[in-house]
Amino acid sequence: ADKDAGKAKSATCVACHGSNGISAIPMYPNLAGQKEAYLAIALKAYRDGTRKNMVMAPMAKPLSDEDIANLAAYYSSLDPSGK
Amino acid sequence: ADKDAGKAKSATCVACHGSNGISAIPMYPNLAGQKEAYLAIALKAYRDGTRKNMVMAPMAKPLSDEDIANLAAYYSSLDPSGK
Repeated sequence: ADKDAGKAKSATCVACHGSNGISAIPMYPNLAGQKEAYLAIALKAYRDGTRKNMVMAPMAKPLSDEDIANLAAYYSSLDPSGK
Repeated sequence: ADKDAGKAKSATCVACHGSNGISAIPMYPNLAGQKEAYLAIALKAYRDGTRKNMVMAPMAKPLSDEDIANLAAYYSSLDPSGK
């Protein structure tokens, strides 16, 4: 997977998940340093609706498997403490 | 919420999510330092089925709102880098 492509793709995610992957909003999860495989699983679940979430569904809908792999690689590579 | 009660309740979670909240299994998320409100939202989603997950459903089913609040307080208090 391509972390840089993931970073480019993450522009829409920053608003809720933070520019460093640490969310500024308590309801929204931190993504920095999260497990790569888990991030991909979660994004696919939002895309195919096994996770019902009105905010994440439209975010995930347009993503290809490759976009998802790149986003997962990018966010899992970030420092979990946000530095 | 009561972190210590959360820690006591977390005995069944350790197998997948690690004794320090950092999962040893790539498919399962790290919980350490995650947002407290998000953890409660996720646990309730597993409990009431808005998130379909065969592993987490039976884990979440028996939890009361208080258990969930305590678990969320406990895991969010852990160091995100697992130290």
